[in-house]
Amino acid sequence: MSRSERAGRRGSRRESLRASRQERHVGSINPLVNTLPLVEVVNEEGVEKIHKAAMRLLSDIGFLILDYPSASEVFRQNGAKVEDNLVKLDEDTLMHFVDMAPKTFTQRARAAENSVEIGGKNIVFAPVYGPPYVLDHDRGRKQSTLEDMHNFLKLNHMTPALQHGGGTVVEPNDVGVNERHLDMIMAHITCHNKAFMGSVTHADNAADSVAMARILFGQEAIEEQPALLSLVNVSSPLRHDDRMLSVIDVYAKAKQAMIMAPFTVVGAMSPTTLAATLAQLTAEALISIAYAQMINPGTPCIMGAFISVVDLRSGAPTFGTGENILLTYAAGQMARRYGLPSRAGGNFTASRIPDAQAGYESAGTIWPTVQAGTNFVLHSAGWLEGGMISGYEKFILDCETLGMMKHYMRGVPTEEEDFAWDAYEEVGPGGHFLGAAHTMRHYETAFYQHKVFNMDNYEKWEEEGSVDSYKRANGIWKKMLSEYEAPALDEAKKEELEAFMAHRKEEIRAKKPRTEWQGG
Amino acid sequence: MSRSERAGRRGSRRESLRASRQERHVGSINPLVNTLPLVEVVNEEGVEKIHKAAMRLLSDIGFLILDYPSASEVFRQNGAKVEDNLVKLDEDTLMHFVDMAPKTFTQRARAAENSVEIGGKNIVFAPVYGPPYVLDHDRGRKQSTLEDMHNFLKLNHMTPALQHGGGTVVEPNDVGVNERHLDMIMAHITCHNKAFMGSVTHADNAADSVAMARILFGQEAIEEQPALLSLVNVSSPLRHDDRMLSVIDVYAKAKQAMIMAPFTVVGAMSPTTLAATLAQLTAEALISIAYAQMINPGTPCIMGAFISVVDLRSGAPTFGTGENILLTYAAGQMARRYGLPSRAGGNFTASRIPDAQAGYESAGTIWPTVQAGTNFVLHSAGWLEGGMISGYEKFILDCETLGMMKHYMRGVPTEEEDFAWDAYEEVGPGGHFLGAAHTMRHYETAFYQHKVFNMDNYEKWEEEGSVDSYKRANGIWKKMLSEYEAPALDEAKKEELEAFMAHRKEEIRAKKPRTEWQGG
Repeated sequence: MSRSERAGRRGSRRESLRASRQERHVGSINPLVNTLPLVEVVNEEGVEKIHKAAMRLLSDIGFLILDYPSASEVFRQNGAKVEDNLVKLDEDTLMHFVDMAPKTFTQRARAAENSVEIGGKNIVFAPVYGPPYVLDHDRGRKQSTLEDMHNFLKLNHMTPALQHGGGTVVEPNDVGVNERHLDMIMAHITCHNKAFMGSVTHADNAADSVAMARILFGQEAIEEQPALLSLVNVSSPLRHDDRMLSVIDVYAKAKQAMIMAPFTVVGAMSPTTLAATLAQLTAEALISIAYAQMINPGTPCIMGAFISVVDLRSGAPTFGTGENILLTYAAGQMARRYGLPSRAGGNFTASRIPDAQAGYESAGTIWPTVQAGTNFVLHSAGWLEGGMISGYEKFILDCETLGMMKHYMRGVPTEEEDFAWDAYEEVGPGGHFLGAAHTMRHYETAFYQHKVFNMDNYEKWEEEGSVDSYKRANGIWKKMLSEYEAPALDEAKKEELEAFMAHRKEEIRAKKPRTEWQGG
Repeated sequence: MSRSERAGRRGSRRESLRASRQERHVGSINPLVNTLPLVEVVNEEGVEKIHKAAMRLLSDIGFLILDYPSASEVFRQNGAKVEDNLVKLDEDTLMHFVDMAPKTFTQRARAAENSVEIGGKNIVFAPVYGPPYVLDHDRGRKQSTLEDMHNFLKLNHMTPALQHGGGTVVEPNDVGVNERHLDMIMAHITCHNKAFMGSVTHADNAADSVAMARILFGQEAIEEQPALLSLVNVSSPLRHDDRMLSVIDVYAKAKQAMIMAPFTVVGAMSPTTLAATLAQLTAEALISIAYAQMINPGTPCIMGAFISVVDLRSGAPTFGTGENILLTYAAGQMARRYGLPSRAGGNFTASRIPDAQAGYESAGTIWPTVQAGTNFVLHSAGWLEGGMISGYEKFILDCETLGMMKHYMRGVPTEEEDFAWDAYEEVGPGGHFLGAAHTMRHYETAFYQHKVFNMDNYEKWEEEGSVDSYKRANGIWKKMLSEYEAPALDEAKKEELEAFMAHRKEEIRAKKPRTEWQGG
């Protein structure tokens, strides 16, 4: 085969490769398995010291239960000392319950192939959670709406970079605060077919989330494998309030999964020292997990950690610094100590727009998150301004980095073919490898192909309008939305979900107590 | 002490802290020692396979010597097989010479406290090397001049984030190509007092670099500890030309240090597979190091690797991808296999301006570079457009990330004080740690304090002009240059250096052969 023949073949391969990539672009999510050695920054003795300190926090300092006597009672009945709502638990009692939580679990998705196993060597990326604002290049920052939520869920459906639909990808501020959880769950069910999260804003809203999951999947199915994964934040330090505890009650009784996540800005909600912070995070997550097991043994739980370090000048949270990275690695080590699925990290930044700072901080968080062996990564795409903004362009830019992870996780194979002996025979010293037969064999899968980042030289870039990556991402999300097609949904189920929503909205608007749904 | 007294004390502490930071800002560079476990992505068996493949490349495929018969002769005399300028070396012969290179060495700086130890657990950051262009926010891209070089060296002098002055921080295009090396070395000697690099553009220019180092430090001093560290690029795959080999001759004879660095765009100058690329990088660096030892045993050498992966669409180099990161970690492993100081990584990007892409790619390279245990990091600050541009703002932004490294390298201490027991006693569950005595004890040193990145909320940020990090960095480098003061230089030495330059410029302009300098 001549060089030009080879080049021709390469051309047509390139085209078919692009076509197959296009096809894969919608729907098919790639399970990510990180079998590389995980990064550890604390030695074994250090891990044990942090564990012992966590035990001492719970047995000596105690954990505060705010305005929820029934939880205090549950703790008392299960071996805790409770005084003035301060719960104290010894190590044996705590670990007895922690050990009831499964080591891995599978969360159901509407498309069976999109169900995700959480735990072990798996990594699942979910989008940003909670922002009350959106930002895009055209309009700047504005309050988010239900339409924005639909848009972000549609973009999620279009990208294989995210394995999970997430939860409150934005707050739909244009829907009444007491009923918006219904529209949000419905948005997840209709806009994509990946797994999603339940509401945690009230026990009733959690119950509504469970009811809708039951309509969609059936009662037995969701008890066998959870259909909801919900975010339970500890009100650090060492405290839970009635809202979160009542939500745990609902989800645990329905055997739905939860992320038990201390929300810590180090230096404010925990001491300035990293070891103390890690002990506190561990104590807070473990007692929450133990409580869920007291309610219903075997409830799937993720040991979570939201990590940020306070900016001592402004009091604002910072991201992507050395301290943040160390805590991310160490949090992974602690979760492995207990054999629990872990959650940490994301594509974090304090910046308000996707500028250089946002890029440095995001990449400075997401790579360590993966290298820490984190199993569930909330806030993987869209995060801006310390979580206040979900950015359309930021979402696209973050997905570029997430897309690279599959290639990273391949590691460095060292089989005979990987040493390319025939290429050296063919090319020889001083030659060029682009046309070599070995290159042809590996061409299509060798390297990550960028979707947003651009490698043009300055001249070409200037000629084409000096488009920075913020602006480039703007064109991409608009094109994606214009090409979006909703995944099919069983019409009967859709109607029952709508009937349920109407029933509940009526109750909510009339301020009537919640009644269980008996069918449409 | 009351809470308000405490707050007051904290305020004055803050101020004195800021003042002491200001003082430290000029001149004092912090040695970086990375004692954390290093990230490894290849297992022991894989490392040995890569080693054996490197040996096979040199013994079976061979290494090409282009237009420099004397080097072929040196190889032949030292046990290599040489046919038609193709050198083949067996493992024993190669390793015999490689073992002569020192495991660590100290490079002299004009300020003794700025001398840097290279090797072991140390990390030294040096700025970008080689760009023919500069970019700043006001003027865009333009050809670089000697004034730009002075500016970047002044900024380097002002920042403690860089431990090394670097070399061709930009090409001074406004100075004659045959004489500019003299102005560049003089710029390093006068603008800062950190260590710097020699010229590699011609053997005569290398000899001039050595001559100027001799005037500055004395002959004996630079033989005892090198005053120059120079960048020798292999013309990959498996080839050296006369320019680089003659430069090695000059520096090795003067016992000056060199980085032996394959310059590889994976897929073009090496096969698409990572293992083959690593074997080739290893072979190319080791044979270069062995050659230097054949010329002068004990010549300090760094095992270098410039790593980039080809964009199969455009042919341009890419940075910060999974493949790049894996290669950076593995290159560190290979250097440790031979006990040699290593060089890899930097703050790389393909982007043309410091936009989000530049941030993601740079952070995606520099953190792995540090976690790989890289001893000498060229291109740590300023790099844009695949190395074509030295960016003023990019330099400032990169230094922000470099500044974080010292905090990262502290790891997670687990002494009694690190568990903050008194803070928990003082604050209790549900409390706030900012005012705790433990926080006060750690306040000043607890976290990295940002110099460029900004944590303001959107409202404050908008009110202050919606300044992105590119623009913010613009103000910072201008302020730094306005505050710059040149470090003192012995007047007699300065005069002799100027006389030497005049003598050499006369010879160069008259196209006379180079004569050795006999004093002014």
